[in-house]
Amino acid sequence: MSLGYRFDPHEGSLVPTNTSVRLASRPTGTPDGQTWSTTTEPTAAVEDGQILVRVEQVSLDPAMRGWLDDRPSYVPPVGIGDVMRAGAVGTVEESRNRRFPTGTPVMGTFGVQQFAISNGSGVEKVDTALGTPSMYLGVLGITGLTAYYGLFKHGRPRAGETVLVSAAAGAVGSVVGQLARINGCRVVGIAGGPEKCAYLVESLGFDDAIDYRSGSVRKAIASSCPDGVDVYFDNVGGEILDAALANLAPGARVVICGAISQYNEAGRGGGPANYMSLLVRRASMEGFLYFDNAADFPVARRRLANWVSSGAMTAPETLVSGTVADFPDVFLRLFSGDNLGKLILDITERT
Amino acid sequence: MSLGYRFDPHEGSLVPTNTSVRLASRPTGTPDGQTWSTTTEPTAAVEDGQILVRVEQVSLDPAMRGWLDDRPSYVPPVGIGDVMRAGAVGTVEESRNRRFPTGTPVMGTFGVQQFAISNGSGVEKVDTALGTPSMYLGVLGITGLTAYYGLFKHGRPRAGETVLVSAAAGAVGSVVGQLARINGCRVVGIAGGPEKCAYLVESLGFDDAIDYRSGSVRKAIASSCPDGVDVYFDNVGGEILDAALANLAPGARVVICGAISQYNEAGRGGGPANYMSLLVRRASMEGFLYFDNAADFPVARRRLANWVSSGAMTAPETLVSGTVADFPDVFLRLFSGDNLGKLILDITERT
Repeated sequence: MSLGYRFDPHEGSLVPTNTSVRLASRPTGTPDGQTWSTTTEPTAAVEDGQILVRVEQVSLDPAMRGWLDDRPSYVPPVGIGDVMRAGAVGTVEESRNRRFPTGTPVMGTFGVQQFAISNGSGVEKVDTALGTPSMYLGVLGITGLTAYYGLFKHGRPRAGETVLVSAAAGAVGSVVGQLARINGCRVVGIAGGPEKCAYLVESLGFDDAIDYRSGSVRKAIASSCPDGVDVYFDNVGGEILDAALANLAPGARVVICGAISQYNEAGRGGGPANYMSLLVRRASMEGFLYFDNAADFPVARRRLANWVSSGAMTAPETLVSGTVADFPDVFLRLFSGDNLGKLILDITERT
Repeated sequence: MSLGYRFDPHEGSLVPTNTSVRLASRPTGTPDGQTWSTTTEPTAAVEDGQILVRVEQVSLDPAMRGWLDDRPSYVPPVGIGDVMRAGAVGTVEESRNRRFPTGTPVMGTFGVQQFAISNGSGVEKVDTALGTPSMYLGVLGITGLTAYYGLFKHGRPRAGETVLVSAAAGAVGSVVGQLARINGCRVVGIAGGPEKCAYLVESLGFDDAIDYRSGSVRKAIASSCPDGVDVYFDNVGGEILDAALANLAPGARVVICGAISQYNEAGRGGGPANYMSLLVRRASMEGFLYFDNAADFPVARRRLANWVSSGAMTAPETLVSGTVADFPDVFLRLFSGDNLGKLILDITERT
């Protein structure tokens, strides 16, 4: 799987070969050995206006599971045989596009592969003055922007209110909780296991943490949030969403960001049985997609970067070193719950 | 069950006897013969500040089913042995309260009984210039105010948008649909059976109607609302809510008013499995209670009355003549789906 160069007599130059992970078949439930295939072939020639990007770090996001299903959503599904869609950062290796000279650090939807050809559409330069490239996949990327807009625009927390967040030790949740703390809120996180709960309180400054593997989450929320939950930021769906709905304060806002507990369910989950709490508590439940706020990204990124550089918040990430062929295994760690913060496959060393 | 007067030697006057329907035991599922008891006893003496109200028309509302369950809600449950809570209109029969002289038509939560004693708290005079007393249980009462605030404040429809309403031939739904039409929206109603559907289009001016007993509601909504549903006003919950969620337009607002399909379910229903449409469609789902808008009621009532008197809308009602002892049977008609508009038990004739 090491990166090789092949002499191309037509081009008269060394052409890098590209290994990519492709969708072989649509999974029912959890992706397995049937889901993916790996191909290695020469990169295409770089045409006028295009760039060749050497991919260095690949983002792993729960939303990727949704892209494998053939159903209407906010983006089309990944096609069978196509390179798996993924956000990534890398470096421009060859350029025929003036906006992105050779050597430029860039981010974009480059896919799970070693090299990507792009016409520059949707590609952004990484401003290394604000943060490291991996931060552009995490706190300064989709993860951080999702947390920022979901919490501030849709959760609308006021200082003094109680904010509850699920998957709180995960990529989005860990940012949401810290932003709520910065916003003067009381912050309670839900995570799996005592280590993660200790991490939330001791390292990220949460006021309290609930281990969903230990007893009734509904009772734990009631005990930890005696005045009710003003903002619930949901990354998980399922029973935890129901437990939160049972504990809403009057006028509560429920922000639907994800439903990771349901993504690998073969059938449809049952939905939140306690949704009538919305009526009793005059509450709202709202979905959103970060990219509707693109015009505002520079402001949000600057604020997030400032909070990180000032030490007001940290940007936890789990970097796994490997090759693109490790993607199928690393992807499953999103659902097994054994990563802290942003999960990234780092292929820099091995390419 | 006829109303009698009994000579009270202590009071030295004729004291009316009062028959009331009381909660005998909490039902599991649909209320039955065990649920209710009927008592007949002399009315209590009217004390200083109190009024004695002769109840004439009793409101029947799906929300009453929720009041029978012993669980936290926006009002306490009806206690075992207590007179069943109900909105009603009547006439002041005896008064020791200057705000409500004898003969005043009044509305209030008088309960399912022939006579109610009240200190005037929560009691309102019926302004017969605006409408008939029964309209104060329907279009000018909780029903109409629920439709008005739910649609305008929480649904926020704009002219040209598509508004979908379930239980559209019911008390609240029939008002919601007509208000949406007045607001310049395209209005689609969901109801049970071809007669009700014809009624919605021909008598209430809906643009289209969907018979939920005939085929896939999801497909029917897709066909009737090709640009998606901008506002869904939900009175029923269950599968119809799920079908509506599957057809939301971007930025849609789902208003949760009730869940009549679930109220008599012994277990908890499954909740809306398609709630993740809120994310894909950047939509919101919001609950509300009309009484949070009490300060604005005079304005809303005046508008509703004007629309009725100008013929812009009609206020359908089903009046059932009977005695309070008929309440248990009439109550079940709410759930069997065989009433049009507001369901009212009229006990004027028989008392």
